[in-house]
Parts: sequence; C-alpha cells; structure tokens
Amino acid sequence: MVVPPHHNWFRLLFVWKGSIIEKIYPRLIILFLFCCAVVYLRGEIFQVKIALNPTPFTLIGVAVAIFLGFRNSASYDRYWEGRKLWGSLVLESRSLMRQVTTLSGLAMDSVEIQHFSHLLIAFTYALKHQLRKTSPEADLRRLLSPELTDRLMQARFKPVLILREMGYWLQQQRQRGQLDSITLVTMDTTINHLSGVLAGCERIANTPIPYTYNVLLHRTVYLYGLFLPFGLVDTLGWTTPFIVVFIGYTFIAVDAIGNEIEEPFGTEPNDLPLNAMCQIIEASVRETIGEAVPTPVTVQPLIVD
Amino acid sequence: MVVPPHHNWFRLLFVWKGSIIEKIYPRLIILFLFCCAVVYLRGEIFQVKIALNPTPFTLIGVAVAIFLGFRNSASYDRYWEGRKLWGSLVLESRSLMRQVTTLSGLAMDSVEIQHFSHLLIAFTYALKHQLRKTSPEADLRRLLSPELTDRLMQARFKPVLILREMGYWLQQQRQRGQLDSITLVTMDTTINHLSGVLAGCERIANTPIPYTYNVLLHRTVYLYGLFLPFGLVDTLGWTTPFIVVFIGYTFIAVDAIGNEIEEPFGTEPNDLPLNAMCQIIEASVRETIGEAVPTPVTVQPLIVD
Amino acid sequence: MVVPPHHNWFRLLFVWKGSIIEKIYPRLIILFLFCCAVVYLRGEIFQVKIALNPTPFTLIGVAVAIFLGFRNSASYDRYWEGRKLWGSLVLESRSLMRQVTTLSGLAMDSVEIQHFSHLLIAFTYALKHQLRKTSPEADLRRLLSPELTDRLMQARFKPVLILREMGYWLQQQRQRGQLDSITLVTMDTTINHLSGVLAGCERIANTPIPYTYNVLLHRTVYLYGLFLPFGLVDTLGWTTPFIVVFIGYTFIAVDAIGNEIEEPFGTEPNDLPLNAMCQIIEASVRETIGEAVPTPVTVQPLIVD
Amino acid sequence: MVVPPHHNWFRLLFVWKGSIIEKIYPRLIILFLFCCAVVYLRGEIFQVKIALNPTPFTLIGVAVAIFLGFRNSASYDRYWEGRKLWGSLVLESRSLMRQVTTLSGLAMDSVEIQHFSHLLIAFTYALKHQLRKTSPEADLRRLLSPELTDRLMQARFKPVLILREMGYWLQQQRQRGQLDSITLVTMDTTINHLSGVLAGCERIANTPIPYTYNVLLHRTVYLYGLFLPFGLVDTLGWTTPFIVVFIGYTFIAVDAIGNEIEEPFGTEPNDLPLNAMCQIIEASVRETIGEAVPTPVTVQPLIVD
Amino acid sequence: MVVPPHHNWFRLLFVWKGSIIEKIYPRLIILFLFCCAVVYLRGEIFQVKIALNPTPFTLIGVAVAIFLGFRNSASYDRYWEGRKLWGSLVLESRSLMRQVTTLSGLAMDSVEIQHFSHLLIAFTYALKHQLRKTSPEADLRRLLSPELTDRLMQARFKPVLILREMGYWLQQQRQRGQLDSITLVTMDTTINHLSGVLAGCERIANTPIPYTYNVLLHRTVYLYGLFLPFGLVDTLGWTTPFIVVFIGYTFIAVDAIGNEIEEPFGTEPNDLPLNAMCQIIEASVRETIGEAVPTPVTVQPLIVD
Repeated sequence: MVVPPHHNWFRLLFVWKGSIIEKIYPRLIILFLFCCAVVYLRGEIFQVKIALNPTPFTLIGVAVAIFLGFRNSASYDRYWEGRKLWGSLVLESRSLMRQVTTLSGLAMDSVEIQHFSHLLIAFTYALKHQLRKTSPEADLRRLLSPELTDRLMQARFKPVLILREMGYWLQQQRQRGQLDSITLVTMDTTINHLSGVLAGCERIANTPIPYTYNVLLHRTVYLYGLFLPFGLVDTLGWTTPFIVVFIGYTFIAVDAIGNEIEEPFGTEPNDLPLNAMCQIIEASVRETIGEAVPTPVTVQPLIVD
Repeated sequence: MVVPPHHNWFRLLFVWKGSIIEKIYPRLIILFLFCCAVVYLRGEIFQVKIALNPTPFTLIGVAVAIFLGFRNSASYDRYWEGRKLWGSLVLESRSLMRQVTTLSGLAMDSVEIQHFSHLLIAFTYALKHQLRKTSPEADLRRLLSPELTDRLMQARFKPVLILREMGYWLQQQRQRGQLDSITLVTMDTTINHLSGVLAGCERIANTPIPYTYNVLLHRTVYLYGLFLPFGLVDTLGWTTPFIVVFIGYTFIAVDAIGNEIEEPFGTEPNDLPLNAMCQIIEASVRETIGEAVPTPVTVQPLIVD
Repeated sequence: MVVPPHHNWFRLLFVWKGSIIEKIYPRLIILFLFCCAVVYLRGEIFQVKIALNPTPFTLIGVAVAIFLGFRNSASYDRYWEGRKLWGSLVLESRSLMRQVTTLSGLAMDSVEIQHFSHLLIAFTYALKHQLRKTSPEADLRRLLSPELTDRLMQARFKPVLILREMGYWLQQQRQRGQLDSITLVTMDTTINHLSGVLAGCERIANTPIPYTYNVLLHRTVYLYGLFLPFGLVDTLGWTTPFIVVFIGYTFIAVDAIGNEIEEPFGTEPNDLPLNAMCQIIEASVRETIGEAVPTPVTVQPLIVD
Repeated sequence: MVVPPHHNWFRLLFVWKGSIIEKIYPRLIILFLFCCAVVYLRGEIFQVKIALNPTPFTLIGVAVAIFLGFRNSASYDRYWEGRKLWGSLVLESRSLMRQVTTLSGLAMDSVEIQHFSHLLIAFTYALKHQLRKTSPEADLRRLLSPELTDRLMQARFKPVLILREMGYWLQQQRQRGQLDSITLVTMDTTINHLSGVLAGCERIANTPIPYTYNVLLHRTVYLYGLFLPFGLVDTLGWTTPFIVVFIGYTFIAVDAIGNEIEEPFGTEPNDLPLNAMCQIIEASVRETIGEAVPTPVTVQPLIVD
Repeated sequence: MVVPPHHNWFRLLFVWKGSIIEKIYPRLIILFLFCCAVVYLRGEIFQVKIALNPTPFTLIGVAVAIFLGFRNSASYDRYWEGRKLWGSLVLESRSLMRQVTTLSGLAMDSVEIQHFSHLLIAFTYALKHQLRKTSPEADLRRLLSPELTDRLMQARFKPVLILREMGYWLQQQRQRGQLDSITLVTMDTTINHLSGVLAGCERIANTPIPYTYNVLLHRTVYLYGLFLPFGLVDTLGWTTPFIVVFIGYTFIAVDAIGNEIEEPFGTEPNDLPLNAMCQIIEASVRETIGEAVPTPVTVQPLIVD
C-alpha cells in the first residue's frame, strides 16, 4: 500500500513514486512515437490515406469509459472487501483474546492462554502466506511446537487446521470445567467468524473478475489508442501526439490500476499491506496477555507491503 | 471459469482461448461483410440513398452504453453473489465439521462422524447437480447408503432432504446425550446457513434478469450495428467496415458476456467452477476427519468447470 | 415472470411474447406517424419553421439516459429485493419445519406438527394475497379450521395474526414440556425472520419510488420524442421517422420496463411468480412431513404468475 | 408521500399535484423570460456580443449529469434507508409484542402487557416527534401515566428513556419469575433492534450529504442555465427559450427532488408518511392484545404525511 | 461538519462559508489569468500556434467525469460508513448501559455502574483521539482513576485496553454472582460490537483509496484545464476565460471535495463532528444513570467539529 504523502495540489502533479506512470510509461512512449509517425506520414499507410475523423471516437469513447468505470468499481470493491476482511481479522482476534481471558477461568499468564494466543497469531500468518503463495514454515516454527508445525506443513489447508486446533483447545477447557456450554458456544462463534475471513479471502484470491472482461477492455483501450491518431491528425497536426498520449494516459492508467487492485493480496505497490497487518495483530494479541510487544517502526516508508 | 494466464499487456491483445471473441466472431464477420456491401453501394438500397449521419448514433450511443452498463452490473452481481454463496458453503461445511468434532463427545473416527461428513459432502454434490440439472445419482451412491440414495432419488427437493437427515442426526445425538440444547441449537444454526446457501442458489438459478431487458438491449445493439454503416459511409469510405466492427465488437461482446455470466452456475467458459469447488469441499471435510484426501490436480488447465 | 426461451442471438431479435414492445407499440406507431407529418411539413407548423438542430438533444440525451439509468437501477433493486424476500420465505419455512420436526419431541405424523405446517403454508398464501390485494379466504379455508379462518378474515393484518398463532403453538409445546427455553427461543427467532419477510414485502408494496421521479422522467422522455423530429428533419429527411422511432423505442421501453418491475408483486408479465413460489413452499413443507406433494406441472408456460 | 394515482402514460404527462413542477415553476418562468431577453438582444449585453456556442455545454453537461446522478443516488439511498428503518420498526414492534405475549407467562389482558404495549406505541410517536422536531407531549399523555410523561418531557433523549423503561419492565418480570435468562435476553435483543432503528434515524436526520456538494451542484446547474441561451441563440433563434426551459426543467427538477428526499423525515410531499406509519403500528399492536383498533381511513388522499 | 443553513435556491448561489470555493479560489484565479494570457496570445506560444479544437475534450471529458464520479462515490461511501460506525457507537453504548442497569442486579447509583459508565465514555474519547492523532490524556484523566490512566497512556492500542477493562468488569460481576453465563455473554456481544466500531474506524483511517487513483485523477483534471483554453480560444475569444473557469470550477471542486471527505475523521469543514458526537454519547450515558448532563449548546454554529 502506498502511504499518501499529503502533498499539496501542485506537488501532486509531479509525483513519480507510487504513481501508476512508473509502470506504464514505456507504453506511453511507444504510443507517442507511433503518433509522431502517423503525423509525419499525414495519416497515410503505404500511400493509402486512412479516412478517419473524431466522430467514431465519440461513439466508442463513452462506451469504453462506462465499461472501464464498471471494471474499476468491481476491482475497487474487491480491494475494499479484502481490506474489510482483514479488518475483521483484527477485530475477531481481539474479541477472541478478550473472551479467552475474561470468559474462561484461566489465569492470564497460564500456559494454556499463551498456547491459544500463539495459535491465533499463527493463523494470521498462515493466511497471509496462503494468499501470497509463500511458505509459512518460518513463521509457524517461530510460534508453534515442532510437532504441530510438522503436521501443519503436511496439510493442504493449513489455516483450517489451525482453527480446528483452536476448537480442540476449547473442547479441552470445557472438559476441564473452565467453560460451560454457553461460553464455549460463544467462542466457537468467534472462531466461525475467523473461518469466514478465511473463506472470504480465498474467494477473492481464487476467483478473478471474469477473464473475458479484462481481455475485452484491454483490447478496446489499445485499439482506441491505435486508431485515434488517424482521426485527429487532419485537424490537430503536430498537437496530435500530445493529445493522444494525454487521452491514452487516462485510459491505460485506469485499465492498469484496475488490474493491480483487482488482486489485492499481492505485493504490488497498491496492494494491501498484509505483512504490516499481521504484525499489528501479533502486537495487539501479545499486548493483551502482557507479552513483549515489538516496538512499532517509527520510520514510515512510502510503500508498506 | 477461465484461469487468467497472466500475460503481459502486449500478449493479452492476441489472446483467443477464454476470450468472448471465440463465440461472437461469426456475427462480427457478418457485420463486416454487411458494411462492405454498404460501402460498395455508397449507402444506397435499390438506388435510394439512406440519408444518415453520425449524430443519431451519438444520441443513442450513450443511452445504449449506460443501459448495457446497467445490465452488466446486474449480471456481474449475480455472478459474484453466486460465488459468495459457494464461498459460504465452503465456510459453513468447515464450521459444521469443526463443531461436530469438537462440540460433541464423539470420537473422530466413529461411524457417526463419518456418516455425518458423508451427508455434508453429498449435500454439496446434490446442490451442484440441481443447479446444473444433471443427475446426482452417481455421487449420492458413492457417498451414502443404498437405501438413503433410493429415497433421495425419489424426492423432488434432494438437498432439502439431506439437510433434514442432518437434523435427525443431531436429534439422535442429543437423545443419546452427546449434545445439550445449546450445542444442538448452535449446529442447527449452521445447518440453517447451509439452507440459506441452497435458497440463494435456487433464487439465482430460477429468476433471471427480467427477460424484456435482454430483448430490448439485444435489439438496440443489433439495430445500432445495422444502421451505423449508413451513418459513417459518406465520411469514412472504406475505413467504415473496420470502425463499425470495432464498435460492434465492444457492444456485442459486452452483451454476450453479460448473457454468459448472468447464469453463473452453467458450464460455459466464464461460469463458476462448481465441480472444482465440490472437490475442494470434499477434500477439506475428509482432511478434517483424517480420511484420505484426493491429491490436488497439479496440471492447471486453462478452463475449470 | 417470463421464462426465457433461450433463443439464439438471431431469433432473439424477433421475439414478440414477453417483450415490452407488446405493450408500447401503439405509442411507437403514434410517434412514427407524428414524425412523418413533421417530415412532410418540413418541420414547419402553420408556416412557421421550428429552428432546431441535433445539438440540444446531445445536451439533454446524456442527462436523460443517466436519470433513466438511475430509475432503472432503483426499480431493479426493488424487484430483486422482492425476490430475495421470497427466497428467504422458502428458506425460513424449510428451517422452521426442520426445527419443528427435529428439535421438538413430537412425532412427524402428529396432529400438532400437521397443524403447524398448515399455519406455515397459510402464512405464505396470506402474504401473497395481501400483496396482490386479493381475498385469501379460499386458501385459508382449505388449510385451516373454520373458526380460525373466520377470525382471520375479520383481522386487518392477517399474516401477523398467523405468526402470532405460531407463537401460541410454541408456547403450548413448551408448557407441555416438548420444548425448553433454548429451543423455544430458536424457533421464535425463525418466526421473527418470517416476520421480517412480511415487513420487507409490505415496505416494497406500500412505498413506491418517489412519484415525482416518475412524472419527471416520463415527461422528459416524451418531450424529447416530441422535439426530436424537428431537430433531425433538415439533415435526415425521410430517414427521420425510422431513427426517431428507434431512439424512442429505447427510451420509452426502458421507462416502461422500469414502471413494470418497480412493483414486483403484481401480475404483469415481468412481475415475480408469487403463485408458483407459494406452490413450491407448499410442496416443500408437505414433503417434509410426508404428506402428498402435488405433482409439479411439467408443461412449462412462457409466463409464470 | 405521494400515493401514485396510476394514470396511463398520456395522463401522466399533465399531472400537476405531486409533481415537482408545482415547486419550481417560478424559476422556470424566470428562466424563460431571461431567454426571451437574450434572444431579443441577439446575445448581446450592452452592445457586446457574448461569443458562445453549444460545445462548452457538451463538455460540462455530461459532468453535471453524472454528478447530479451521484447526488440523486445518495439522496434516494437516504430516503430508502429511512423507509427501511421504519419498516424495521413495524417488524420489531410486532416481534416484541409476540414475544411478550407468548414467551412470558402473563395473560394477554393483564395490566402489565397493556402497560408494555403502550410504552411501545409511545416509543414510535416519540421517535416521529423527535425526527420532525415537534412536541410529543399530546401523544405521550394519551398513552402513558402522568408521572412518566412528566419525567419524559424533561429528558433530552426521550425515545432512549422509553426503551430503558421497557428494560425495567423486563427486569421486573424476571424478578417476579415470569421470564428466565434466555427469554429475557431474547427480548432485550429485540429492544436493541428498536434502539438501532432510533440510532439509524438520528443518523439520517442529523448528518446531511456534505453541504458543499449541494452548493456546488446547485451553482453549476444555475450557471449552466444562465450561459445556455447565449450558446444556442445564434442557431436556434426563438426556439431557444423553449429548449432552454426544457433542459433547465430536467436539471433543476432533479436538483430539487434530490434536495427534498435527502431529508426523508420532513413533511414535504415526497417525504415518508411517518404519521401514517405510527398509526399502523398502533393499530397492529392494539390488535395483538385485543384492544379496539381505530378503523383504517378509507378515503385515500393523494398525499400521506 | 457544515450545518446546512437552509437558504432558498437563490441565496444558495452566493454562499461562501462552508463552500469548497473558499479553498480552491486561488487555483481558479490562476486558471483565469492563464486563460487570459492564452486569449491575448491567440493560442500561440513563442509564435507557434497550438492547433487544438474542442473535440479531444469531448473525448476525454466523459471519461474524466465518469472516473471522478467513481472516486466521488468511493469517498462518499467512506464518509457515510464512518458516520454509520459512529451511529453504531451511539447505539451500542446505549444498549450496553441499558443492559448493565437492567440485566445485572446492581443498583443504578452503585460505584460499579458508575465506573463502568466512565469506562464507556472514556472508550469514546480514546477512539476520537486515536482517529485524530491527538492525545487522549486530558479526557482519560477526567474520567478514570490515575493508575488506570497511567497504564493506558503507556499502551499502544488504548481503546482495545479499555474494552478489555470492561471485559474484566463483567468477569468480576459474574464471580460476584450478579450475572449468569447468559447475561454475561449477551453483554460480551455488545462489547464485540464496540470493538467492531473500533476496527471499522481504524480501517477507514489507515487505508486510503489507492493513492494512484488520486494522482491520476488530479493530473487528468489539471491537464484538462491547462489544454482547454487552447481548444476554445479560436471560437470563443474573450468568453474563453469565463467558460474555462466555470468548467474548471466543477471539476476541481469535485476533486477537492472528494479529497476532503475521503478521510472523514479529520477536522476539515466537511469532516464528521466526532467531538460533538462524543459529547452526545457522554450526555446520553450520564442521563441513563442519573448523573448531571451538560446542557446542550443552544447557539448552533455553522461548522461543528
């Protein structure tokens, strides 16, 4: 996630880092050079004049803008839903820790509470690693017993198994008389909510916006940019490349941003800072049970992963 | 579902598989040939010049784009809601398995747990078959006893009856003292959620977007394509067919994609991969109770059904 | 509801049944004749030339399209929410039947269960009749005792009273020891959900989209159609009537569809099939308790009411 | 709320009552006269020709339409959310009455039940009066004891205190053994939902759409109308005033409707019929406990407050 | 928050306070002067004529309007969600106070109730200070014991710790026999809802709309304003600066409003009145337990922070 630097309106015009232009400038340069060639040749290809005027671009432009707008909204909804799910993760892990420490009869510094809190932190990291397709081994080994880590590393659905471990923990506390049916069921419901976060994240990660949309919009945007100079060259002359690149910048950038935030759990600049959120949850859980909290990083980088 | 192949922006322009163009290219060829005829005849039909210019298309084009945008959003919402419902199915089946194994006093490898887990898997397949209007018999027979399968095959609402079987199972466990009222009611609530998934899927499958919308948009799009060459021929000449096909491609493709994802439970390329999701649920449930999990398919095909 | 006949793209262009054109064709014919008159008079009224060109229609057209799009979305949301509510009705009636048969200690074929299931079916029909402003007497008399029917027919809020009867039934079962507080409260919650369906349907039925919107949009659309031929006649000549009817068809049709689905509980072709859904609920409830299920109608009509 | 009179499409064009034109016609007359002056002066002010053509209005018109569309959606969402909240009020008051009569052991005609039902009706009226900033004294005095009315009239948050009174009532019934913890908590949850309706209504009433939006849109719409005749006068001549008033009517009306329904709890024609809804709740609650129900008004007025 | 002064339509045109024009007028003056220079130089820069006409602005204008519309909706959704969360805070704090006073056996004026209510008020202020990045020390010291205040001031997640304190309070009351499991769990759920408000506010405060959107839109808007005079100067002459500033005003204002309400918890004029809402909650909680309520401020200022 790019942390917005709060520039004023003037400086904002010249931002480079965190702007999508970093990514698409090669395409814009190609487009600019192509336009220059078109102007130089006065819109002729092999001595054949391509008869074109701006009218068709008016017809198609509105449609493209509306469909890009639609794709954009859909991408942003996915991004924001992903963020909501991780917000729920923060919420539910806090609730669960509060319930475990106040609804059960266990002492705050008991081994049981500590084990449970480590399971909870491990769940968070396991989810992050699953979404980013990286190995959770280091984080799991840091938090859990070697046996449990080994068992988890063999399983296909690691976060699911960690939730089941939490279920067993609750069952044990009930058998030991620390919980009655009502408090047990209350905590089980909170675990269900964690499970809901997991299922929601999997849904976003595994089901993209239908691929044909992307292909269609992508093509329409680039065909539009390809035809546009022929339509403008007769009236605008050498102003054409600047105007086409300006229009192309807007359309291509929106297409590219949509592509980037459509999959919000990756590690591109505008994706969600899953790493930072895992650390916040770890700090929050550890603070609850009085364990040492890692000091927050005071240097704020421009991009948080 | 088409698994996006992560091409770069350039290769994406030439994708064929999974693109809607696979489906609509015959219509685009017809449109192209029709435009050529119009240009050849200079916009005359039986020596009568069809007086037309681009203005009316500006008037109608925005409207068409907005209504197509509306239809598209509605279709996508249905698609995404369908996906959410199947995500809930994953979630609730995991929760139910966790509750059955940790809230009841039954051993993990007991016959009762096994029977319940098979009911749950059978529910998933029965739902898939109902939505795709295929016969669930093979899957039911694989999972359930012959008597139960026979009884189910005679029933009209198969998934409903499977849920009722789960309800009886809970009632029996309670009568045997394995569950108290509170844990019983908690699991009953989870079964209600499964029932909610079923009702939601039935709603999407049985109630299309009002038919008149589709008829209206379809007609407007094709009439637009029919009239357009007459409006452009006088100024664009032989560029007309290319421009009309470009504009027609955008509108017809959006119309066709909307049609395809409007019914997300079918087997067209952009529909939801119900089959794969059933297998994931089966694997997940079996892993919970320690049964053999079918190895995930490692070869990732382009299209998952 | 019109059951979509799955025509291919070509046949879809010539559909008549279930298309809104069935309803609006007289207005389109009037518009066509009016345009012909305008062309014949060369845009003059009593020898005064109406100076008009297409520009103002560009200005107003986008606005009209956007506001029509807004009204359309609002109408469709009402339609879809109505459908969701009836989907919930299916869901909650199934849940309630499952709870009544598995959470209570009553035998499936007992008189109590039968009475309760008939109350539930009667609620569904009473809701349908209230929404369509028809008399529920025949359906109530078919399902309930004469005394109860008489009492209900005198009441103003019939479905509310049926829900209260269900509440008494629960109270009686609890007093007879068939239910404890927890199972009682669980079923009471399900009855609340039925009550929520009722309140939601009443909301949609009693509160239209603010009337001024309809008046405004209706007027703008028709004024637009009235002025348009004067703006096009100078450049398009005898092509004008065809183009105006084409544009008029799109706008008038969207206005008319919006009007139709705005009140989704009526009996117009695109309204919701409340009748069919009542029958499905009745069949589903009766199947649960082993009563004879009316055979589903196999002939699928084009329009389901 | 304007009750739609179900005119056919033709009569709908000439509706006056309930149309926004009732409110804005003075502004449209001013705009018409201003346009006439512009045409008479041929677009000159003090002999200086205002050089303007329709192009800038194309540029700005789309933007204005889109932002008006946005404001409109936001206003309508507030209107519809307000309606949903009052729908919930109907629902929750019914549920509460059913719970009070069936979950407690109290007789239907007992003083306690009567007192509780009057508290519930009083809550509804207190909410209405708070939202409309009128005095609830008459209604409270009609329903509650003089002492309680006096105490309420001194409080700042009257509906909150009525809900607290309901809470005390529940506490008393529990102490008298009429309720156990579970039924108590169930009813407390329903009271929370009433509290949620209150908080939601306060939110809508106290937090308008950010004021700057309204100022901006209002200004843009009126500046647009002010400039427009200068842009059209050269080509349209004396048709200008009619066209400008037509375009102005659409924009000004949408702006005015948005303003009206943005605050849905007032007493303007298109606001919600809070009064009627209070009476429906009163009738519904009284019917439940067998008290005399005021006969529904049979004459249906055009506007319900 | 700007309290809307309810001017009539005419006075609304000349509002200065609370209008965004207060903030952006320097940019509009710069734009005006720039346009004047362009007109004076007849669109030439260093004797080179910039060939431009309005067509490209038609192409880009629609796109910009649609994307601005999208950003605007997203910003407004954040604003309104923030408001909803604070509305929930009002709701949940009332519910919690009602539950604490009616579900527990504690006397209204007991020390325990007073302590709990102060924790609740402190939570509200701590949340406000965290969102506005100000020090909560003064407010905490005013409400809580010195020891607790000191402990809180050292913690990183202050509101979380206050909620945990509430959890301990519940645990104590249960150990003292004032609460049973069911009432305990009911109040714990309400505390979860408070925790949900906290997590939701953190989400909005910490995760902006992806930064690239803002950069892109900002740039497109200002480039549009920069190019526009060159496109209009040939046809409009000295009318150009007025028209460009009018168009620029609309776009720049929408961009600036979107920026302002995107972060709704700040102290800019259109941000949410967190301060006032804290005071309302404090008054409401104190009224419930009969403590002195600070008299509401009768002078209504234009802007509430």
